[in-house]
Amino acid sequence: MKTSLARRVVAEFLGTALLLATVIGSGIMADGLANGNVALALLANTIATGTALVALILAFGQISGAHFNPVVTLMDAFEKGLPWPETPHYIVGQVLGGITGAVTAHLMFAVPVISLSHHARSGPPQVFSEFVATFGLVSVIWGCSRLRSNAVAFAVGAYITAAYWFTASTSFANPAVTIARCLSDTFAGIRPIDVPWFVCAQFLGGFVATMVFRWLVPNLQVRAKEVLLAHDVEQTR
Amino acid sequence: MKTSLARRVVAEFLGTALLLATVIGSGIMADGLANGNVALALLANTIATGTALVALILAFGQISGAHFNPVVTLMDAFEKGLPWPETPHYIVGQVLGGITGAVTAHLMFAVPVISLSHHARSGPPQVFSEFVATFGLVSVIWGCSRLRSNAVAFAVGAYITAAYWFTASTSFANPAVTIARCLSDTFAGIRPIDVPWFVCAQFLGGFVATMVFRWLVPNLQVRAKEVLLAHDVEQTR
Amino acid sequence: MKTSLARRVVAEFLGTALLLATVIGSGIMADGLANGNVALALLANTIATGTALVALILAFGQISGAHFNPVVTLMDAFEKGLPWPETPHYIVGQVLGGITGAVTAHLMFAVPVISLSHHARSGPPQVFSEFVATFGLVSVIWGCSRLRSNAVAFAVGAYITAAYWFTASTSFANPAVTIARCLSDTFAGIRPIDVPWFVCAQFLGGFVATMVFRWLVPNLQVRAKEVLLAHDVEQTR
Amino acid sequence: MKTSLARRVVAEFLGTALLLATVIGSGIMADGLANGNVALALLANTIATGTALVALILAFGQISGAHFNPVVTLMDAFEKGLPWPETPHYIVGQVLGGITGAVTAHLMFAVPVISLSHHARSGPPQVFSEFVATFGLVSVIWGCSRLRSNAVAFAVGAYITAAYWFTASTSFANPAVTIARCLSDTFAGIRPIDVPWFVCAQFLGGFVATMVFRWLVPNLQVRAKEVLLAHDVEQTR
Repeated sequence: MKTSLARRVVAEFLGTALLLATVIGSGIMADGLANGNVALALLANTIATGTALVALILAFGQISGAHFNPVVTLMDAFEKGLPWPETPHYIVGQVLGGITGAVTAHLMFAVPVISLSHHARSGPPQVFSEFVATFGLVSVIWGCSRLRSNAVAFAVGAYITAAYWFTASTSFANPAVTIARCLSDTFAGIRPIDVPWFVCAQFLGGFVATMVFRWLVPNLQVRAKEVLLAHDVEQTR
Repeated sequence: MKTSLARRVVAEFLGTALLLATVIGSGIMADGLANGNVALALLANTIATGTALVALILAFGQISGAHFNPVVTLMDAFEKGLPWPETPHYIVGQVLGGITGAVTAHLMFAVPVISLSHHARSGPPQVFSEFVATFGLVSVIWGCSRLRSNAVAFAVGAYITAAYWFTASTSFANPAVTIARCLSDTFAGIRPIDVPWFVCAQFLGGFVATMVFRWLVPNLQVRAKEVLLAHDVEQTR
Repeated sequence: MKTSLARRVVAEFLGTALLLATVIGSGIMADGLANGNVALALLANTIATGTALVALILAFGQISGAHFNPVVTLMDAFEKGLPWPETPHYIVGQVLGGITGAVTAHLMFAVPVISLSHHARSGPPQVFSEFVATFGLVSVIWGCSRLRSNAVAFAVGAYITAAYWFTASTSFANPAVTIARCLSDTFAGIRPIDVPWFVCAQFLGGFVATMVFRWLVPNLQVRAKEVLLAHDVEQTR
Repeated sequence: MKTSLARRVVAEFLGTALLLATVIGSGIMADGLANGNVALALLANTIATGTALVALILAFGQISGAHFNPVVTLMDAFEKGLPWPETPHYIVGQVLGGITGAVTAHLMFAVPVISLSHHARSGPPQVFSEFVATFGLVSVIWGCSRLRSNAVAFAVGAYITAAYWFTASTSFANPAVTIARCLSDTFAGIRPIDVPWFVCAQFLGGFVATMVFRWLVPNLQVRAKEVLLAHDVEQTR
């Protein structure tokens, strides 16, 4: 039995909020404790983000599909998974959730509730990194589409853990995450002026990955409905 | 066939004892080896705690549900999982287990058996952090309630790994853990005077998460019995 | 169809050899790169050991049960899992495997093939730590005995990861490992004179855990055969 | 229904490219941030590589078997898994994928697109390390051949995480990886002159492991087809 749209959008909101609280909060904590050792701070930030994704996708996957990411939502609609009219609701839920998560992290660490970031992340290598990061992320998601759905949580958590380190941009790979992080003048921030380039590269990377997997896995559209939307009964206990 | 109450309470005692031995013992070890590098000490403490949770929930989940946490036990009773009359037995087992774990860690590291902590953890951001931490923990548990039960062990271990870093309080999220840690004047300690605020925020966070998930997952009460109490035969080999 | 004893003993030999190559080799590597930062060296040593256990138990579990540990083998026989006459073969395979692994690590890192360790690990807190470490390890193994067998690999890997940090002795918890490590005058070594105390504490910890779980899980003896010996067909593809 | 050879070769190409982008990219990132702390840089490089393998094997395993490694492909053909005529296609896809991944990492980090490495990795201990590393890798793969196929992703990711630390060579264990890394004058590089020794040791290690497992698991050839080639329907949802 399908979960109502309202419930699914609230699940996307909550999951994205907890994800952003993790990304930004762990960045503040790690930066504060690491005494300028950026490798160590990024390692803590990475481990927190990767494990949060595992937990949150396991928790919300059965309710909304646990996209937490407008690129994933659009690509899912493109493959006839999520119905198109539901797409804007998902994306609004994700973006508002991301901002709420940033605010939550700021309140927990007693820094200004909202502050525009001064962290420059620009130039072709950074933008190309976001293209690669999102191409990889969407590839992993479509690649797992024939596995039992729990595997997606581990695959995505593991992929983002790796991508924090193998891309020059530390792999935002998610427009909702990118928007929320420009509102945080902390370790995880990004200047608002750099956001549009990141977001374009992310959508492009996701789109190319979807086109590649449409050829690679001929029955991808059939799978899209099962994997990324609410999961079927066979998966439950 | 349901396991007897005595066996389940002993399982809660043992699991909580091993959990606290991990939290406090790894804190002492990490603090001692890290030469003042707090980020590195906390990373070791985090990895030890997260992996211990995975192992202990896998090991004791089939016996008692592996709550190890009075908030989880009360919320489970609230959702008609655990019968109310069994609740105090669970909680007493958890609290005594936590204290036993603290004492065990102290004996292993040759520090005073019991010593009140002087580690201040106070102020609204810390208390709000505990609210968020426990809200997230209970959300993850209820969110996984439709998955096969092994997933809960990985989800909770992963969540706490993240929450150590994304909350300003390093995410106690558990009254039995909080009480035991006030008896340890080491890396993981908390001043007794800060305990009541933490515990109140934890129960409140767990309660709000339960209310949210009651709406989000309409058949949550039906699931509570299966997931958090002793698991059914289908899960066994 | 049960695997022949010779094959199972060779599996125990190979698995224990690779385990010890990991414990000792990663200790040498980490110690050499960490410039005296012992917390960082131990963290690398921990992660290598925990992940090796996951890989090796997944790989050899279906063949021999992947004990790699005389305490586990004896307790399994005690619970009527492994037949008593096969026990000495298992233990000899494990001890020889451990020594072979130590030699392999030494050859890879170009240090003396065998050298008695000077690393003192003595005193009641260290010995008590080994009791606790092995009590916890055997508890986790028996606790997982009702889960599908893959879970044991993750539970044991996760448990040892935690136990490296929460015990003052870094959790040897295995007589074959202890013997092999006394032949390595490197980061992971232990003085030969400290070995008997460690081994006694390990057997005692394993025995107490087995007694506790005999009461806690009444049908433990029935499970022993299925879980720790070669696994049944249902588990295979 | 079997996936066409073209699709499987493209999957090998893509997966190996993403793997090498991770190995080399995370090496550059870690080296740049770690301020000469090589243990910390290698730890970040290790975690990125291990998690990338989990994600990529989960994603591409159902399509091509996710070998990403000429040794694995040859051994699979040797055990009558992959048909011999398809072997060269796989290997060419892997080698070209590896080079593409190196180029991608270089573009993301704005270093020269191709540059021969000056990182010396020579001498018998290094070459012996590659023998051990690949012996262990192929042992783990064959050992998991009776488990459900998802386990291979976790076992291989965990094994390589350990092997980065327990071998003196940091465990290349893969000729396609070795060739690509000689084209990168960065943290992860290897001098071209050292490549042939590494590759020979890798094939030898894989061959010995296959011979050992042929005896250890008598029905290994039957399994090879199911596990390492495209997986059957039972594994899908």
